Amino acid sequence: MPFVNSAEWTIANLAPLVRKRKLSPVDLILEMLGRIERLRRRLNAFITVTAELAMEQAKRAEREIARGRYRGPLHGIPISLKDIFWTRGVRTTSGSKFQRAFVPREDAAVTERLYKAGAILLGKNNLHEWAYGVTSCNPHFGPVHNPWDLERIPGGSSGGSGAAVAAGLGLASLGSDTGGSIRIPAALCGVVGLKPTRGRVPLHGVTPLAWSLDTVGPLCRSVEDAALVLAAIAGRDPRDPDSFGEPGESFTGRLRRGIKGLRVGVPRQRFFDRLQHDVRRAVLAALTTLEGEGAELREVSLPILGETDRLAGDITVAEAYAFHEQWLKARPADYGDDVRERMLASAEMPASVYIRAQAERREYTRAFAAAFEEVDLLAAPSLPVVAPRIRETEVAIGRRKENVRVALTRFTRPSNLTGFPVISVPCGFSSENLPIGLQLIGARAEEARLLGAAYAYERATPWHERFPAD
Amino acid sequence: MPFVNSAEWTIANLAPLVRKRKLSPVDLILEMLGRIERLRRRLNAFITVTAELAMEQAKRAEREIARGRYRGPLHGIPISLKDIFWTRGVRTTSGSKFQRAFVPREDAAVTERLYKAGAILLGKNNLHEWAYGVTSCNPHFGPVHNPWDLERIPGGSSGGSGAAVAAGLGLASLGSDTGGSIRIPAALCGVVGLKPTRGRVPLHGVTPLAWSLDTVGPLCRSVEDAALVLAAIAGRDPRDPDSFGEPGESFTGRLRRGIKGLRVGVPRQRFFDRLQHDVRRAVLAALTTLEGEGAELREVSLPILGETDRLAGDITVAEAYAFHEQWLKARPADYGDDVRERMLASAEMPASVYIRAQAERREYTRAFAAAFEEVDLLAAPSLPVVAPRIRETEVAIGRRKENVRVALTRFTRPSNLTGFPVISVPCGFSSENLPIGLQLIGARAEEARLLGAAYAYERATPWHERFPAD
Repeated sequence: MPFVNSAEWTIANLAPLVRKRKLSPVDLILEMLGRIERLRRRLNAFITVTAELAMEQAKRAEREIARGRYRGPLHGIPISLKDIFWTRGVRTTSGSKFQRAFVPREDAAVTERLYKAGAILLGKNNLHEWAYGVTSCNPHFGPVHNPWDLERIPGGSSGGSGAAVAAGLGLASLGSDTGGSIRIPAALCGVVGLKPTRGRVPLHGVTPLAWSLDTVGPLCRSVEDAALVLAAIAGRDPRDPDSFGEPGESFTGRLRRGIKGLRVGVPRQRFFDRLQHDVRRAVLAALTTLEGEGAELREVSLPILGETDRLAGDITVAEAYAFHEQWLKARPADYGDDVRERMLASAEMPASVYIRAQAERREYTRAFAAAFEEVDLLAAPSLPVVAPRIRETEVAIGRRKENVRVALTRFTRPSNLTGFPVISVPCGFSSENLPIGLQLIGARAEEARLLGAAYAYERATPWHERFPAD
Repeated sequence: MPFVNSAEWTIANLAPLVRKRKLSPVDLILEMLGRIERLRRRLNAFITVTAELAMEQAKRAEREIARGRYRGPLHGIPISLKDIFWTRGVRTTSGSKFQRAFVPREDAAVTERLYKAGAILLGKNNLHEWAYGVTSCNPHFGPVHNPWDLERIPGGSSGGSGAAVAAGLGLASLGSDTGGSIRIPAALCGVVGLKPTRGRVPLHGVTPLAWSLDTVGPLCRSVEDAALVLAAIAGRDPRDPDSFGEPGESFTGRLRRGIKGLRVGVPRQRFFDRLQHDVRRAVLAALTTLEGEGAELREVSLPILGETDRLAGDITVAEAYAFHEQWLKARPADYGDDVRERMLASAEMPASVYIRAQAERREYTRAFAAAFEEVDLLAAPSLPVVAPRIRETEVAIGRRKENVRVALTRFTRPSNLTGFPVISVPCGFSSENLPIGLQLIGARAEEARLLGAAYAYERATPWHERFPAD
């Protein structure tokens, strides 16, 4: 099998081979299924492997391509889905005990779109229970392990997605991101994670965590791949009234334009507070690289960032509780301790507190929008730390300790509050050989610009060329 | 003064005269100020008359036009604003005791845009206290009277706007609509009222009632005028993150296309329940007129309408309470009894109830969106009744009585839940010579189509030609 787990192992590289029939989707899937089996125990990145479905889909793809009916760059490409995306006929657990045996009768809008694009489903990725946490230590399906160091978490909640893509099990996975759940595993596993503008990708058939913050996006091995997967899943679906954009819209148009003159804002306050030394070094080097590629760096000040945790916290916990209230009351013991505790924290929240948080969120969004009148995007670390160890509740930052959940969401939550798009790309490694992520944060609906900047950065750096050993 | 309070008394008719300098903005404003003074006690439609500002603006408009700097169809045209739109230097009471002396330091986004378009501000219209009610019987500024029968309410909450426009005091007024507050006075006063898609018009500088339902739009004397005013105020403003569309976009493009082949849905269930006899007769005749103009009528079924009052009620009361909580606690006696009572009804609402109402609202919106895959718009009565008498708490519908507030919001609230655009146009008169309104309800962002259908109806009928006697 060509390229597996090398820098060439991308959709953009494989798709032309599939199209020209130099690479058989059936061979590709067989290789992938073997690889998943081999690494299954070690990583625990899959809750369900859809071997039969994948073989069927691969055979159909092969037949179609042989008949000249090539569907586009995802045709015949193996991917996986975080196990909160409904898959017709394939159980969808949401990482929970409650839905251990739930088999949807319908596909999620994004599942439907990936199938239509010809993608092959390898299986459903393990995740933090109900997508409500950052470690992916799942009490019902076991912890996911980070392919770079099996003693460490891959991050969460889309931890199985991050681990699978980093380990070369498929070429992409869809994750969801309510407080960082795509970007945290992307950064900790050394892959690309894109959280699009809220509404860009329809949420129909995605188990909600906090509906006003939830977003769907890809974890991939390159920026171009993220653009290709986004194009397949983006655009309005009538079943999600908040969704927008034309289905089929391309996001690759600006990829090769370079970033000469791009105004990159650097929010030195808060986004550069309390960083592990290696993270600071890598991110500062990344800024220098961006400058070297022609970007203009500008200091930006966003004092409103001080409100992030309170607003995102109140909104998340209130919405999660509203969805789970009846189950929580009926079967509290069927939740993991951490998730139950977080959800019950808002049981008594009055509507007025939640509503004022949503109103303040509008001011928050407005402050960000104003910043984007001065700059084209913001650059900041994705996370202040590299991957913590499994079951560690605190992580060291210099001589201080910080709660793992607080540390991992400090820099990701702002983009959930604004709903604006953001991408995390690999930007270096710690002295322990653990990946570090750079966030590029865009203005509303500016995914194409964001992808262009990330692509220029990726081309200028070697980080996407390194992969964990099998 | 030409045309005053005749069918020719429209922006579309006066603007060319102003442009060609056949009509002086200064003369126009002098005439208007005199007229307002004359009818002031009778109607009580204004809380503040901005005579000096209006004269200044009129003189400036006259100078600009004389120098060939014509700004467009609102230049030199007298308008008024419901007194919840901020006006720099002019007090903005929101119909409340609390803000009796509040003078904003900033204009609302729409105030700014109307000034930029050259419109002349006659004053600030009386309204239901805090825009939270349907009668415009204001405990602090006195009741507004319906120009068609001074013993009757003009409807609310934009009652002063409806009365002013119906009585020929200015050519348009801006209202706001959270549960029907533009359409109710438009229907009861016999003028055109347009509630655009939520977000089409920015809310910056508008006192909120319930922020997730609030919408701003014009009350006018013709459909074309509504399109002209909408064009001046619509489009994204960075200070309102929910606002959308290009500022300056035109909405008149489809006005003269006719409605041949237009698929008009008729929701016979609920929207035709419990109507006063004259209302039913007028609306059925309107459907026949639409058919005569080439529209295809189709029965549509929207069982979800049964959830309207619960969802809209929970959301409105919770959001209103969240905004007013501190004032309510500190100075409860400074609210009118009806408003205080409604707001306190949700003091104890848990966040989860509100959040689930918002989630159900998404399903509700989706059901409407699905209906718009079968039809281009819906036609229905604006209200089940004609104007009730002032201080009447119940209104007769046949042999039954119904609470005034329930009756007046039954048909208007659905479009606030969906956020979709809707227009109320005059469609006849009761045996007591009171106006009746027809609602045309469109799909999201389809204002131009809606205005086209309303225009065709208006051209085919004589109702816009009748006006209340001075």
